[in-house]
Amino acid sequence: MTEKERRVAAGKRIWRNARLATISPTLPGLGVVERGAVASVDGKIAFAGPEADLPASLAVNADMVDCDGRWITPGLIDCHTHLVHAGNRANEFEMRLAGATYEEVAKAGGGIVSSVRALRAGSEDELIRQTLPRLDALIAEGVTTVEVKSGYGLDLDNEAKSLRAGRRLAEERPISVKTSFLGAHALPPEAAGDKDMFVAKVADEMLPAIAAEGLADAVDGFCEGIAFSPEQISRVFDKARVLGLPVKLHADQLSNLHGAALAARYGALSADHLEYTDAEGAAAMAEAETVAVILPGAYYFIRETRKPPIQLFRDAGVTMAVATDCNPGTSPLTSLLLTMNMAATLFSMTVEECLLGVTRNAATALGLAAETGTIEAGKWADLAIWDIERPAELVYRMGFNPLHQRVWRGS
Amino acid sequence: MTEKERRVAAGKRIWRNARLATISPTLPGLGVVERGAVASVDGKIAFAGPEADLPASLAVNADMVDCDGRWITPGLIDCHTHLVHAGNRANEFEMRLAGATYEEVAKAGGGIVSSVRALRAGSEDELIRQTLPRLDALIAEGVTTVEVKSGYGLDLDNEAKSLRAGRRLAEERPISVKTSFLGAHALPPEAAGDKDMFVAKVADEMLPAIAAEGLADAVDGFCEGIAFSPEQISRVFDKARVLGLPVKLHADQLSNLHGAALAARYGALSADHLEYTDAEGAAAMAEAETVAVILPGAYYFIRETRKPPIQLFRDAGVTMAVATDCNPGTSPLTSLLLTMNMAATLFSMTVEECLLGVTRNAATALGLAAETGTIEAGKWADLAIWDIERPAELVYRMGFNPLHQRVWRGS
Ligand SMILES: [Zn+2]
Ligand SMILES: [Zn+2]
Repeated sequence: MTEKERRVAAGKRIWRNARLATISPTLPGLGVVERGAVASVDGKIAFAGPEADLPASLAVNADMVDCDGRWITPGLIDCHTHLVHAGNRANEFEMRLAGATYEEVAKAGGGIVSSVRALRAGSEDELIRQTLPRLDALIAEGVTTVEVKSGYGLDLDNEAKSLRAGRRLAEERPISVKTSFLGAHALPPEAAGDKDMFVAKVADEMLPAIAAEGLADAVDGFCEGIAFSPEQISRVFDKARVLGLPVKLHADQLSNLHGAALAARYGALSADHLEYTDAEGAAAMAEAETVAVILPGAYYFIRETRKPPIQLFRDAGVTMAVATDCNPGTSPLTSLLLTMNMAATLFSMTVEECLLGVTRNAATALGLAAETGTIEAGKWADLAIWDIERPAELVYRMGFNPLHQRVWRGS
Repeated sequence: MTEKERRVAAGKRIWRNARLATISPTLPGLGVVERGAVASVDGKIAFAGPEADLPASLAVNADMVDCDGRWITPGLIDCHTHLVHAGNRANEFEMRLAGATYEEVAKAGGGIVSSVRALRAGSEDELIRQTLPRLDALIAEGVTTVEVKSGYGLDLDNEAKSLRAGRRLAEERPISVKTSFLGAHALPPEAAGDKDMFVAKVADEMLPAIAAEGLADAVDGFCEGIAFSPEQISRVFDKARVLGLPVKLHADQLSNLHGAALAARYGALSADHLEYTDAEGAAAMAEAETVAVILPGAYYFIRETRKPPIQLFRDAGVTMAVATDCNPGTSPLTSLLLTMNMAATLFSMTVEECLLGVTRNAATALGLAAETGTIEAGKWADLAIWDIERPAELVYRMGFNPLHQRVWRGS
């Protein structure tokens, strides 16, 4: 065993000569510490602050990493994805650009039904095989925690298969994964248009079985005219409450069904999209501490014109996160850096709002505020080390990855 | 010498078991060849077509690459960039998002003047050091030819320094580089507002010296109210004509000064941006075979609302290319794949138009139509091999790089 190996085995590591954007809520703005250091012991942060204040005991037998003045942020968190899916909808995209109508696309087998068909046809291994390149794209940009939803299976076996694939991602790669059961995503063909009957199946059959197997960390739904009504969503959320699972909701994306207020009423971790949310919804979210998850990728890709009411969220004191919404139909996006640029460029979110939105606030949206999302003692040593001069560069650039190194749980 | 090394040394290589998007003008659409093969000899394409038609003689002593059914396109071409620049304007971006006015940004040293100051302060080596990560980002996505402009030096020494740095990129990396002298980009502070005097200097002093040193492959200008008038641009173009250099123009981006028609009158290789170009301009471009270079990154980043008249260009039969316009002020974009997605999503360009726009048509915009941009015998073996099921995926995805391998001049 070399000296280096001995130190690594001791589970102690120090990143020194760095500039920290700790994102700590006890510091203003990005929580910047110049000439900073971070020490980890057994994967958790034992110290983060000015290098001059680093306790000498932590340096004993520690593996020492000189960051050459680079910036360190918390590892990034993508708190809303449909990363586990099969096939893609590039064909549909091409048809639409060539002038095809939605009817023509549907006739050619397009739309969400095609994603359901593809997912049902594939094995769990095949799902993993197709998902890993997308996950690797996120990881390459410093993502250390990712949320993944089901929602293309739409029957128990296939929803369970999706969530098992989601769990397995954390075995295949060094990353933390949170799963959400999104049975109430769309109506499968075999439901023959009967939304109430399908929702009953989701709430009374699928959800209890999924919960019994421990496959879901949260329960999600899609509340929209083209999906499910507030009453139908409530049926699912009521069961989630009984089972002790937190909820989140695709809300107010295409119209105002008061989905944000509904989510808040159930104490949801987050309400997501929110283009049509009104002041009442924003106030309810603030009161319930429900995070607003902003998804500019879908807005951009499907050419929406109604922007989420960012200023309303600011005024009401709603916590905002930012996520890719990676999915084959409306947001085939696998870059959280680009997502921040979209949030800034399309929605005028500030650099600080964007960076908090993919770190601390994204952790809150996943119920992980105590574990990750900031560089503070006691949290996992999930870090991203960047070749940049200032944090704003992470938001400003488009299609450029300045990641120097990524650290998940101390290594 | 191993058998493999002997074959490589023979300068013969074959990519077989591939699907080709040749982009050949003799075939419809993307010029697709299923079960195709490409053979290169000494860096040039000796054969491209159905594998069954591959001449046996080409296989003798050739290095054989099995593509496992992957797609091959021509290597991508970014035909409009300001890749060679110093510093960045993330600070300015951050200030604007935080609500600063243009005056406040200017007072804080922002705007193009800050890029001029940064470029003048740096050595040629420093410029190269800062530019290579951007170039590497393009290369990582299969770019094999890139155009780079000067335009932040704005005096002879610094314009020459920029162009020398541009030329050197082709020594530092396996890529073809075309340089454009963009002296008429902006007014430097020392010109004290006298545009005519500065233009005289560009045309009569800088350009002849740049040409004498062989530093520029083309001459570019910025025709706009905030830059130079059509008359001032004409002065520069007249001198370019005398010196035998082709021209191109930043035209009609923010207003209609009839820049497209001006470019066409000089037989320009391309006119670029073109948001305000009218039917007359489009007709003139078609007649002169001037390529329309569409730059969605700048449109997106500076939140323009006026789109270039794509349908007008189609109707008039104008050839369209697509490029990043990579620059620190209005398009800090280093992904040609993302640029295609923007052209499709923001401007409704079709998949075919996007792919032609970064291959054959981009080559035409650089005067390289005979050398690269399609997979045809006689051209350089510049190829990109992709892990995709269909070419549309290259346009559909956002922030994802499916490049399997890049080939520049046969290797
Ligand atoms: Zn979603
Ligand atoms: Zn430009």
